[in-house]
Amino acid sequence: MDKPLRVGLAGLGTVGAAVVRLLHRHANELADRCGRAIVVTAVSARNRSRDRGVDLSACTWHDDPVSLARDPNIDVFVELIGGEAGPAADAVAAALARGLPVVTANKALLARDGNALARIADEKGVSIGFEAAVAGGIPIVRTLREALAGNTVSRVYGILNGTCNYILTRMEREGLDFAACLAEAQRLGYAEADPSFDVEGNDTAHKLALLTGLAFGTEIDADAIHIEGITDITPADIEAADELGYRIKLLGVASRTESGIEQRVHPTMVPKSSAIARIDGVLNAVAVDADAVGEIVLVGPGAGGDATASSVVADLADVAARRVLPTFGRPAERLAAYRPARMRRHAGGYYVRLLVEDRPGAFATVAHRMAEHGISLESIVQRRRAPRADAPGAVEPSAAQPIILMTYETTEAAMRAALAAVAGEDVVTGKPRMIRIEKLA
Amino acid sequence: MDKPLRVGLAGLGTVGAAVVRLLHRHANELADRCGRAIVVTAVSARNRSRDRGVDLSACTWHDDPVSLARDPNIDVFVELIGGEAGPAADAVAAALARGLPVVTANKALLARDGNALARIADEKGVSIGFEAAVAGGIPIVRTLREALAGNTVSRVYGILNGTCNYILTRMEREGLDFAACLAEAQRLGYAEADPSFDVEGNDTAHKLALLTGLAFGTEIDADAIHIEGITDITPADIEAADELGYRIKLLGVASRTESGIEQRVHPTMVPKSSAIARIDGVLNAVAVDADAVGEIVLVGPGAGGDATASSVVADLADVAARRVLPTFGRPAERLAAYRPARMRRHAGGYYVRLLVEDRPGAFATVAHRMAEHGISLESIVQRRRAPRADAPGAVEPSAAQPIILMTYETTEAAMRAALAAVAGEDVVTGKPRMIRIEKLA
Repeated sequence: MDKPLRVGLAGLGTVGAAVVRLLHRHANELADRCGRAIVVTAVSARNRSRDRGVDLSACTWHDDPVSLARDPNIDVFVELIGGEAGPAADAVAAALARGLPVVTANKALLARDGNALARIADEKGVSIGFEAAVAGGIPIVRTLREALAGNTVSRVYGILNGTCNYILTRMEREGLDFAACLAEAQRLGYAEADPSFDVEGNDTAHKLALLTGLAFGTEIDADAIHIEGITDITPADIEAADELGYRIKLLGVASRTESGIEQRVHPTMVPKSSAIARIDGVLNAVAVDADAVGEIVLVGPGAGGDATASSVVADLADVAARRVLPTFGRPAERLAAYRPARMRRHAGGYYVRLLVEDRPGAFATVAHRMAEHGISLESIVQRRRAPRADAPGAVEPSAAQPIILMTYETTEAAMRAALAAVAGEDVVTGKPRMIRIEKLA
Repeated sequence: MDKPLRVGLAGLGTVGAAVVRLLHRHANELADRCGRAIVVTAVSARNRSRDRGVDLSACTWHDDPVSLARDPNIDVFVELIGGEAGPAADAVAAALARGLPVVTANKALLARDGNALARIADEKGVSIGFEAAVAGGIPIVRTLREALAGNTVSRVYGILNGTCNYILTRMEREGLDFAACLAEAQRLGYAEADPSFDVEGNDTAHKLALLTGLAFGTEIDADAIHIEGITDITPADIEAADELGYRIKLLGVASRTESGIEQRVHPTMVPKSSAIARIDGVLNAVAVDADAVGEIVLVGPGAGGDATASSVVADLADVAARRVLPTFGRPAERLAAYRPARMRRHAGGYYVRLLVEDRPGAFATVAHRMAEHGISLESIVQRRRAPRADAPGAVEPSAAQPIILMTYETTEAAMRAALAAVAGEDVVTGKPRMIRIEKLA
């Protein structure tokens, strides 16, 4: 048998410790699979003395990941520190510069520097494995990179953030508002103390940027992504969605359109009958529409130490078996320039929730404004009037009443113009809410 | 760029023609991905003159696939003929013997000869790609072979035959019996003129045998699979399942048990809430339970020319990129001997449907027999008496009445003994029906 693959592992948090454990537990099996053993020989972490439940006594310790990346006694560098800049970025650069293959779970770094890093990896003839960076344990990177090589992808979309999906699932099941469900998620460890990166859609956007590159063969451009988070979603929206046969999910969607590749992250109405609608809690799911295969859907854990470590180890097995794979499925220099579709040209159906004063003609005014912008309505639902608290059965005569509209396919530009016009009407109170509808099989 | 990969393609049916089309349509893309072009240079098929809608004028024609496999001007042999013996087997053997990599969709051949063929491939340093042989366009082979390298699998199971799933879905939706739904499936081209291979579970068993080898690192042993088809499933079973919160699916299941690896194909009660219960029509789905990743589920088309061709082309891309992968995820000589679990030791819950005479004590007799064999009942449902046709509202006094039992976990041996005892009771008419329940998240 060949000499062992010597792993330098930077970052010994939940995922890092799980990688050490998995490599140890499956050592014989991995050696069989790869033709040689995989052994962690050097590590770096901020705190040497913390008990991580794994035996690192035989490893060389580095305080600095860049020093680890330069350790002459490693054959591959694993980066599990995170962050788009700082030590993680410096260490990855140092490893690639000396021609070491890299395995990383760092979506932020790749979303920012993926094109440049892939180019360096190509020059050095090594891989950057990042299965763990997108959807945790779900093998979507290798599915797009290898399994769908004979396909043209028309759309890739998914639930890529377990925190958001957990919150939306709880809001739906319990009828609670966003803040209450976020607090619960934080209590259970499903959300960070500062949750903004997750709930505002940025984490999903980073992952989507990588999926877009893999799926469409274009350069990574995370800045071109239209991003909306879930912080404004209300129980009223979720209830209305339910009545109309939909559920609300935070989706990342990249699709080929006439004007370019559209990349967007936003709360989305998905038909209850769709596979993606049934993904609950912290699970992730990714679906791919492609010309040969049709649609495939992959479901699994999007986070968690062991699940994420599973993907890191799979990438290490590729390195050990000397399988060199181009980072985004083809040489970086062959990635097409990313031609962004303008969000204003997005075409689709829309859900709109408005509050109108309860007076004759309010309804007609709204419908009229929509028609002026060429928007056809598939349905209009006037919600039941809220009963007066002091006299059940009676209603507040002047209370604002919610109206819910579902439109046929129109453009984002038309919808925005129509909403601005509607919002300017006297009968309309507050800001209209709009949620995009995704057409799914 | 490197010299093109020259493909010899045996079998120009639906899948073969689709492979030619895909390679042509995605030629540039594939060349980018693999570092060289993939070109079909030689073919074999029984009928040269048939119009397949693809241009084969530049190809060398062979009447015999073995002659094609020996063509000095091919670098890889693609076998899309099918059949566990005959020309397909001879041609694959001939190709491997001269050290050519093989790509095949032939589950029957690999289920029979997989161990020996994998050993020859290893000796020659080439791959046998068979992604297309299991679940059509779903990348389950590479998921088990590569993505889950850092896992110990405890169970792999799935809906692996679209014909059976279509029939069961239609029986459920329309309340029709098996024969009617089979006839419909045949009319729509979803079932063969001789459907026995599909509906009796043999096709599922072939696929399961390959999944078992990949998932557990054991030698292929299709003969050890316990197989039951769907021909005996009645609308009454499906209706009872529905009332009890289950759906009936034909599953292939391989799982690690204390007594060895269990491989079984049978109609199965799956909870409606499970992902697998929601797979309708001709779709396939495969789920894997593993120690690191937890559960992942892959859903997609299990058949069809383009979807299957997608998997063939993915395997060709591996060959073109010079990725040599051991057939079943590790060298054939490192596959463990398959130690079959005895079906009698299978542990699980059971659904039982009995017809009993409508007289006092019938119910107690059945419950008593079950208890004697140590079987605890989770629920007993006595179905409503069938109304008399000539007098709605009245019931036939002596008509046999169905009783439905759901048991807690017990063993197959206990269940078989209990059913034999029950069947021997005077109050029981006809043969009791038994369907296994699968525990799913």
